[in-house]
Amino acid sequence: MKKDSSLGKYRETLREIIFEAETPAGKLFDIILIVSIVLSVLVVMLDSVSTIRNSYGGFLVFSEWFFTFLFTIEYFLRLSCVDRPFKYATSFFGIVDLLAIIPTYLSLFLPGSQFLTVIRILRVLRIFRVFKLVQYLVEIRVLNQALRASRRKIIVFLFTVFTLVIVFGSMMYVIEGEQNGFTSIPRSIYWAIVTLTTVGYGDISPKTCFGQTLAAVIMIIGYAIIAVPTGIVTTEIARSTRRKVSTQACRVCSAEDHDIDAKHCKYCGAKL
Amino acid sequence: MKKDSSLGKYRETLREIIFEAETPAGKLFDIILIVSIVLSVLVVMLDSVSTIRNSYGGFLVFSEWFFTFLFTIEYFLRLSCVDRPFKYATSFFGIVDLLAIIPTYLSLFLPGSQFLTVIRILRVLRIFRVFKLVQYLVEIRVLNQALRASRRKIIVFLFTVFTLVIVFGSMMYVIEGEQNGFTSIPRSIYWAIVTLTTVGYGDISPKTCFGQTLAAVIMIIGYAIIAVPTGIVTTEIARSTRRKVSTQACRVCSAEDHDIDAKHCKYCGAKL
Amino acid sequence: MKKDSSLGKYRETLREIIFEAETPAGKLFDIILIVSIVLSVLVVMLDSVSTIRNSYGGFLVFSEWFFTFLFTIEYFLRLSCVDRPFKYATSFFGIVDLLAIIPTYLSLFLPGSQFLTVIRILRVLRIFRVFKLVQYLVEIRVLNQALRASRRKIIVFLFTVFTLVIVFGSMMYVIEGEQNGFTSIPRSIYWAIVTLTTVGYGDISPKTCFGQTLAAVIMIIGYAIIAVPTGIVTTEIARSTRRKVSTQACRVCSAEDHDIDAKHCKYCGAKL
Amino acid sequence: MKKDSSLGKYRETLREIIFEAETPAGKLFDIILIVSIVLSVLVVMLDSVSTIRNSYGGFLVFSEWFFTFLFTIEYFLRLSCVDRPFKYATSFFGIVDLLAIIPTYLSLFLPGSQFLTVIRILRVLRIFRVFKLVQYLVEIRVLNQALRASRRKIIVFLFTVFTLVIVFGSMMYVIEGEQNGFTSIPRSIYWAIVTLTTVGYGDISPKTCFGQTLAAVIMIIGYAIIAVPTGIVTTEIARSTRRKVSTQACRVCSAEDHDIDAKHCKYCGAKL
Repeated sequence: MKKDSSLGKYRETLREIIFEAETPAGKLFDIILIVSIVLSVLVVMLDSVSTIRNSYGGFLVFSEWFFTFLFTIEYFLRLSCVDRPFKYATSFFGIVDLLAIIPTYLSLFLPGSQFLTVIRILRVLRIFRVFKLVQYLVEIRVLNQALRASRRKIIVFLFTVFTLVIVFGSMMYVIEGEQNGFTSIPRSIYWAIVTLTTVGYGDISPKTCFGQTLAAVIMIIGYAIIAVPTGIVTTEIARSTRRKVSTQACRVCSAEDHDIDAKHCKYCGAKL
Repeated sequence: MKKDSSLGKYRETLREIIFEAETPAGKLFDIILIVSIVLSVLVVMLDSVSTIRNSYGGFLVFSEWFFTFLFTIEYFLRLSCVDRPFKYATSFFGIVDLLAIIPTYLSLFLPGSQFLTVIRILRVLRIFRVFKLVQYLVEIRVLNQALRASRRKIIVFLFTVFTLVIVFGSMMYVIEGEQNGFTSIPRSIYWAIVTLTTVGYGDISPKTCFGQTLAAVIMIIGYAIIAVPTGIVTTEIARSTRRKVSTQACRVCSAEDHDIDAKHCKYCGAKL
Repeated sequence: MKKDSSLGKYRETLREIIFEAETPAGKLFDIILIVSIVLSVLVVMLDSVSTIRNSYGGFLVFSEWFFTFLFTIEYFLRLSCVDRPFKYATSFFGIVDLLAIIPTYLSLFLPGSQFLTVIRILRVLRIFRVFKLVQYLVEIRVLNQALRASRRKIIVFLFTVFTLVIVFGSMMYVIEGEQNGFTSIPRSIYWAIVTLTTVGYGDISPKTCFGQTLAAVIMIIGYAIIAVPTGIVTTEIARSTRRKVSTQACRVCSAEDHDIDAKHCKYCGAKL
Repeated sequence: MKKDSSLGKYRETLREIIFEAETPAGKLFDIILIVSIVLSVLVVMLDSVSTIRNSYGGFLVFSEWFFTFLFTIEYFLRLSCVDRPFKYATSFFGIVDLLAIIPTYLSLFLPGSQFLTVIRILRVLRIFRVFKLVQYLVEIRVLNQALRASRRKIIVFLFTVFTLVIVFGSMMYVIEGEQNGFTSIPRSIYWAIVTLTTVGYGDISPKTCFGQTLAAVIMIIGYAIIAVPTGIVTTEIARSTRRKVSTQACRVCSAEDHDIDAKHCKYCGAKL
């Protein structure tokens, strides 16, 4: 397909500004973007506080629409200047970018849904790329890797927890009954999760002797199994951050166990 | 004992369908079974929600009995086609299979007990076998091994926790007294467990100065000793993740627990 | 000092029965003792439940005095048959044995103090010695050693926690004030401990905007520093349970890294 | 600048007494200081308890001003005898020393602010220096080093937590609405933090079915991610406990971070 070359050039410049953070213009764009996102999230938050809404409601609604229009334009610009718009639209950031503007339009039909625009806070995650926080990216990768490696163990663990809360929740429903706040099995399961995770709101709590005994057992179990995910993740983090030791031996004294960045043997001083 | 060979063949086919998941028929059976279990648990849960029971009560009761009859037939088929019915009946899954049908029959005499049928959710644990989630089985074994290895340490720990909650609970009963909600020592022990495990419902909480001071001490202790089971389990998970132990037993002395790279039995020296 | 030899012999036998658990008589004595302790603690617990006290009060009071007399006699027998009574009286178990009988006598002057006799549950700790639970003793030693090794780190940690709760508690007292339940600094410190340890009763909770913001900060800090004691204890447990590997090399193939209980080289099968 | 030598000598002696803890006079000064600090904090605490204030109010106010004058004089003496007053004034202890006296003066204009003087409890941290608790200083350094090394990972983690609570809080605001206590997004975020950290006051708790389901999801997530900071800190504590790093810097290239058994600088090869 033949392309108008001046339009192509224009698209290329636009792409650089919007998607890259290397050029001054690109960096400026990203900074303005992040500031806009944070401001728009603040606007939505303040709009939800009734005393503030009563005083500054008009201004807040205006700002909300202003930011939404801005982000809508930005979204279509992004779509227009990437080579594969569909790939961008289905990527993590593409979906977040879309979800960040939909709720405001939706609020015309479903009042209240505009508050879901706070999901645009996820867009701020670009910050690590903008400011070249490379070391943070390394740490993120380490954590990510550790969580991914422990994925299967955590699924097994969650499966066990779900089975436990279903069984315990139903037992509490039978023992305590509707008169003590355990009005249904789903609600009792909710209580079991609140208890097992040691959150313990106290909006529902066992009243009978037998119920309190079972609750105590659930808590002790919760106390013991809180150790399991911690153990899993700790092991993986320890593994993925293990100190890098070079496998190189000194050519003069044959000593090993040198740091990966060492240039001289730490025992005899010879060049490695 | 002589057997009717056509009956024997029929039994063998039945056993393959019910107990194995290799053949298409066996796999289909297991999938239908798991779907039935999940559906039946959902039915029991929905039946416990009073608004739903009022509208669809008849249908839910019918479904419950339908699934129970299904599982009863399945239980007897299982019993009939295994070679050693008693061994199956006393195995973990055998007991769960039985417990999964009893409560519905029991509910004829003890209304309310039908809700205990949710224990059949435990039957879903077969899922790991059905879908050949071998890697998950490996992870389960690692976690299992870690928990088993830390068994004794955890028992010592729980023993200490029980002693602590009895002593602290009684002290709070004497300090706070019945007028502040600590109406008996068992109830005070329940409070001590709620506090030590950091659940903290707030249904019972100290009111006096001295009681709050002691409660603060208990919390700090709970904070410090929550570290102990975590430390135990983390250490074991790290070890069983790292240490590769062969499942091979020595053919001469039957000793197990050999390292994965071992070529000779470490106890009798025979070749592995 | 000259001694009546028959009295000496009698003392020796008594000492063996009471303090040792090797002879059948000694073992029987210890089992009876542990059963008595558990029964007496149960009696005290039941006595605190008002409905049970109203029905069986007389019997429970009688049992309590019966057990107390029994333990009093036992205490004096212990004192009489050890060679160094003072050393026993000031040892951990000596003090617990005394504290286990005093509250009942004290209750003649201070009603209610008899409930403190549950401290005699600590005497049950002898159980590990009686039943030769040697492996448990090993585990106890490992845990003990780990906690002792992390003693100083934990003290530093607790010191930091105390400083934090004093500062945060006072800030909340100034911010929230007496009308929101933060009636004094000690009470606000109690609240800060309840929050930092993630217990969260909810009997006192911030009401003002600024108070809730500070509370959120305290929770996030609590969330982060709950990691510190866990890290300390985990490190020490990992260190004290590290797998015992023999330093012995095989005389035939020079392979190392044999288990401490290995009798043959795992690579060549030669006797170690 | 020429100095009066007798004044210089006087300043030198003063500096030794106030800043050092080697000489008997210096040690005595530090002990008196720590006792005064603890007493003054106790006075402020007691002053906040209304029953005590009503009885001993006059004495407590007098003590407060007495200690404040003492610490003010001490502060100016410290300023006068150090060589670089500005550096001291902007150091951690310099700022704490100033903050420890300001609130009392401020209370003349802003009643209630005198309670903020408890910040002077931070001054007690000098205790580790005074009593030569060298081993504690080592432990503090290990913990400090571990926390510093995990700094970046913890920031990434907190960033994730903040994003999560903003998104979850807003969702709950939309789902539960103002009639169930979720009166604004900031308040819903406060609730999300209370839940995610497993504190769980119960002052706000979900009432609707859908809200309780989402809350359960948040709790399970909180349960899983509580493992992350623990894993991070445990790994670092294990590393800084294990890894022995010399404090010696290379005399040639000034590089630090050498192993304790290193004989040559690993960067330039010079003898250490």
